[in-house]
Amino acid sequence: MSRLTHFDDAGAAHMVDVSGKAETDRVAVAEGWVKMSAETLDIIKSGTSKKGDVIGIARLAGIMGAKRTSDLIPLCHPLPIARVAVDLTVDDALPGLRVTATVGTAGRTGVEMEALVAVSTACLTVYDMAKAVQKDMQIGGIRLLSKTGGKSGDWKASPP
Amino acid sequence: MSRLTHFDDAGAAHMVDVSGKAETDRVAVAEGWVKMSAETLDIIKSGTSKKGDVIGIARLAGIMGAKRTSDLIPLCHPLPIARVAVDLTVDDALPGLRVTATVGTAGRTGVEMEALVAVSTACLTVYDMAKAVQKDMQIGGIRLLSKTGGKSGDWKASPP
Amino acid sequence: MSRLTHFDDAGAAHMVDVSGKAETDRVAVAEGWVKMSAETLDIIKSGTSKKGDVIGIARLAGIMGAKRTSDLIPLCHPLPIARVAVDLTVDDALPGLRVTATVGTAGRTGVEMEALVAVSTACLTVYDMAKAVQKDMQIGGIRLLSKTGGKSGDWKASPP
Amino acid sequence: MSRLTHFDDAGAAHMVDVSGKAETDRVAVAEGWVKMSAETLDIIKSGTSKKGDVIGIARLAGIMGAKRTSDLIPLCHPLPIARVAVDLTVDDALPGLRVTATVGTAGRTGVEMEALVAVSTACLTVYDMAKAVQKDMQIGGIRLLSKTGGKSGDWKASPP
Amino acid sequence: MSRLTHFDDAGAAHMVDVSGKAETDRVAVAEGWVKMSAETLDIIKSGTSKKGDVIGIARLAGIMGAKRTSDLIPLCHPLPIARVAVDLTVDDALPGLRVTATVGTAGRTGVEMEALVAVSTACLTVYDMAKAVQKDMQIGGIRLLSKTGGKSGDWKASPP
Amino acid sequence: MSRLTHFDDAGAAHMVDVSGKAETDRVAVAEGWVKMSAETLDIIKSGTSKKGDVIGIARLAGIMGAKRTSDLIPLCHPLPIARVAVDLTVDDALPGLRVTATVGTAGRTGVEMEALVAVSTACLTVYDMAKAVQKDMQIGGIRLLSKTGGKSGDWKASPP
Repeated sequence: MSRLTHFDDAGAAHMVDVSGKAETDRVAVAEGWVKMSAETLDIIKSGTSKKGDVIGIARLAGIMGAKRTSDLIPLCHPLPIARVAVDLTVDDALPGLRVTATVGTAGRTGVEMEALVAVSTACLTVYDMAKAVQKDMQIGGIRLLSKTGGKSGDWKASPP
Repeated sequence: MSRLTHFDDAGAAHMVDVSGKAETDRVAVAEGWVKMSAETLDIIKSGTSKKGDVIGIARLAGIMGAKRTSDLIPLCHPLPIARVAVDLTVDDALPGLRVTATVGTAGRTGVEMEALVAVSTACLTVYDMAKAVQKDMQIGGIRLLSKTGGKSGDWKASPP
Repeated sequence: MSRLTHFDDAGAAHMVDVSGKAETDRVAVAEGWVKMSAETLDIIKSGTSKKGDVIGIARLAGIMGAKRTSDLIPLCHPLPIARVAVDLTVDDALPGLRVTATVGTAGRTGVEMEALVAVSTACLTVYDMAKAVQKDMQIGGIRLLSKTGGKSGDWKASPP
Repeated sequence: MSRLTHFDDAGAAHMVDVSGKAETDRVAVAEGWVKMSAETLDIIKSGTSKKGDVIGIARLAGIMGAKRTSDLIPLCHPLPIARVAVDLTVDDALPGLRVTATVGTAGRTGVEMEALVAVSTACLTVYDMAKAVQKDMQIGGIRLLSKTGGKSGDWKASPP
Repeated sequence: MSRLTHFDDAGAAHMVDVSGKAETDRVAVAEGWVKMSAETLDIIKSGTSKKGDVIGIARLAGIMGAKRTSDLIPLCHPLPIARVAVDLTVDDALPGLRVTATVGTAGRTGVEMEALVAVSTACLTVYDMAKAVQKDMQIGGIRLLSKTGGKSGDWKASPP
Repeated sequence: MSRLTHFDDAGAAHMVDVSGKAETDRVAVAEGWVKMSAETLDIIKSGTSKKGDVIGIARLAGIMGAKRTSDLIPLCHPLPIARVAVDLTVDDALPGLRVTATVGTAGRTGVEMEALVAVSTACLTVYDMAKAVQKDMQIGGIRLLSKTGGKSGDWKASPP
C-alpha cells in the first residue's frame, strides 16, 4: 500500500536516503496563476512596457526561489539545480497572469518541489507588487504538470 | 489614480521608503488549501496520530517560511516579526487541508506578504510530504483575509 | 606530524581542495544530550502525546540544521546531502533527552560536521522550547560516533 | 503550573506573540567547552600565534552564528542584535577551549538562544578545524549563565 | 588616536554594542562602475529595450543584496532596512555602467555597508550577465558618497 | 554574433541549462584591491600582529562569501564548491590591500562568479573594519584573472 516516504516505520520524519539512486537527468514542470481584476491586469500590462516590469521581477523571483527550495521545505534534499525557466503570460479571460516553471537537474532526486516553489514565489511576488492597487487578488491552480527521469519514471498531469 | 508603489516615476523597481512611517501594531491573516483525494487525506489523518505528523511539519514549515519572506520576495522589507500562528484543518468536503496563517509585527510596514508566504510554504510542504502517494494534488485559494494597523487602515476580504 | 588541514603552509585559512577526491558514499553518526529536571522531562513527555510535540520539532530542526552546515561552519564545503535522520529518545536516568543524528552523502568530503550540527541544533531547539519552565538545562556529550567512506577510511568512537 | 509557551492550548506550535512587550535592553551570557587531548590543544595554541588562528576563526563563526539563530531555531523571533562578543580561552586542565558568548539587544524578546547558538557554533568550528588531528573531541557544558532585562527579570545560573 | 572599533582592547573581534545608541533616520549613498567595451555596452543597451533586461536584473540583485549584508559582512549588525534604491546609468565615455545605491533605516547603526554591498552586488550581476560576451570587464570606483544621521554625524565624500 | 546567454530568444531571463555539460575540474582566479591612506594601512598592519586581525577576518569573509554566490547573483547555478583560497597582501605603493581569490569545483559550470564574489566580499569586509578610521577608502580593480576547464576552454587576462 501507498505510504508517506518522509517518515520511517516509527512515524518519525527523516530526509529519505537517496545515496543509492543514480544521477540521472530530471525535469519537472509546474504551473499556477494569480487572478486579479481586469483593471489591475491593465496596470501590469502597461507597466511592463514602460512603468515598471512586474513580470520581469516575478520571473526573477521565481528563478531565485527555486534555489531556496531546500531551505524552505523541511525534508527536501539540497541539489545542484542545472536549469530554471519561469514564464508568465497574460490571460485576459482569467483575468490575471499564468505562471509556468521548468526546472532541471542531473541529480539523485527529482525537482518537483523546486518547480512548485518557483511558481509559488513568482505568484507571491506578483501579489506583492500589485497589492497597492488590489488586495483581493487570489493565487491558485498550483500543480505539477509533468516530471521526467528518476526511478519512478515519467509522469504527466491529466488535463484539468 | 492607483499605481504600483514598488516602482519610482521612471519605472525602476525600488524598496519603498518606510522610514517616515510610525511603528504600529500590524496583523495580517491569509488562507489557502491543498486539494487531494479522500484516500490521501485519510493517510494524512491517520498519520497525524501515529505514523507521521504531516500537519505538524507543515505548520512548522509555514512558521519558518514567514521568517524567510524578505529573502524570497524581492522588494519586501526585512522586519522583526512578533508573532506567527499557522493552522491546518482537515476538510473532508474539499477533500484536503485548509491552512490559515496569522502574522503580527510592531513595525513600519505590514505583514501581508509574511502571512501569504507562511500559507504557501505550509501548502507546499503538505504537497512534498504526500507526493509519494498522489502527484496531482492542487494548491489554491491563497488570499489575504484581513489586515489591521498601518496608515492605510484595516481591510477585510469579502466572503468568497 | 599531525597538522591542521584548514590552514596552508603560511597559516592562512582556506577551504581545502577536494576536487581530486572520489565521490564515494559517506556516512557519519553523532550524538549529544540535553540534561534537565525530571519535572521538565515529564512535561516534554506528556506534551509529545497531546500538548505540543517538542521531540518532533527538535527532530525537524536537526534535519534542517544539517542543511545549513556550510553556512555556519566557515571552512565546510557545501555538499549535496543525501540522507538525514535525527532520533531523540527519553532517558529518565539522565534525566533528559538523548539525540543521535545520521547523515549520508555521495560526495567528495565527509559529513561529520553535518551530523554534529544536526545534533547541536536539535539540542538547542529542545532548550528553546522548554526554557520557559527551566533555564538551567545543560547541553553536552556532543561527539562523533562513527564515520565511514572517504580516503581516511572508517572510524568508530571508543565507548565513553 | 509551568507550561511550554511555544504551544497554544491545543498543543499546536506557534511563535509567541511579543508585540505587546516593551523594547528593553536585554543581555544574555552563555558558555560551553570543547575537550581535546593536550597534544591537540598544543597544536591549536601554537597555531594561534603563527600557523593558523583556530581561536580567531571560531570566535568569528560564533558571532556570525548568533545572527543565524532565527533561521536555525524554528520558533525563535528574528530580532535586531545589538552586540555579540565571543571569548575563547585555553584551559590546560580540561584540556581544551572554554567559550563564553555575550549577546545584547534592545528588543521585545530575550537573546538567550542567540548566546547559546554563538557558543555552539564556536565549539563546532573548533571541532571542524581540529578534526584532522583528533576525531574524539567532545563538546559539552553548554548552558546559560545569565540573562537580564525583559518582563521575567534577571536570572543567574547557580555555580556548577 | 583612531582605532578599529571592531576589536576590543585585547584585539579580539566583536560586534560593537549599539544598544545604547538612539534610533535615528540614517541614509547612506554609495557608487561604483563596471567598465566594458563599447560593443558589450551596446549589447546591454539594446538588450534593455527588447532582448533581455540586464539593468533591471542588476538593480533587483542590488536591492536584494542590501538585505543580505549582515549575512556577508561578519561584524555587521542585522537591521531593519527601510529603503533601498539602486540606479544604473549608461556611461558611453567609460564605457560601461555606473551604479549608485541609496539605503535608509531608522535604526541604531548606519547603513554604509548596505549601500556598498548593494553597489557591489549590482556590479557583479552585470558582470555575470555579460561575461559570455566579454570576460575582461572590470569593476571599480566602489566608494561611499555620503552618510547622514547617527552620532558621528553627516559625511560627504570629496569630489574624485 | 555574441549574445547574452542568460536570456532566451524572447529576452526573458533564465538560468541556463547546464545538465548536458560534463562535470570537469574548473578553476577561476580573480583579484581586486582596497585603496586607503598610508596611515590606515599602518593601523591594519600593526593590528594583524596584535591588535585585531583585519586580514584574517577579511579572508574568512571572502571564503564564506564564495559559498553565498548563488544566493546573491540571480542567475548563478548553485554548485558544490571544492576549494576556496583568498589571499590578502599589503601593497605600500597603492597604498592598501590586494586581494586574490582562487575557487575550484568539479561541476557543470564555471566558478568565475564565485571567485569575484569572494574578492568583493573580502574587500567590503576590509572597508567595514577600517571605516571607523577612514571613510573614503575605495574598492577597485575587481576582475577575472583566469579560468580553466569547461567547454569554452581556458582563458587568461591580459596584463593590466
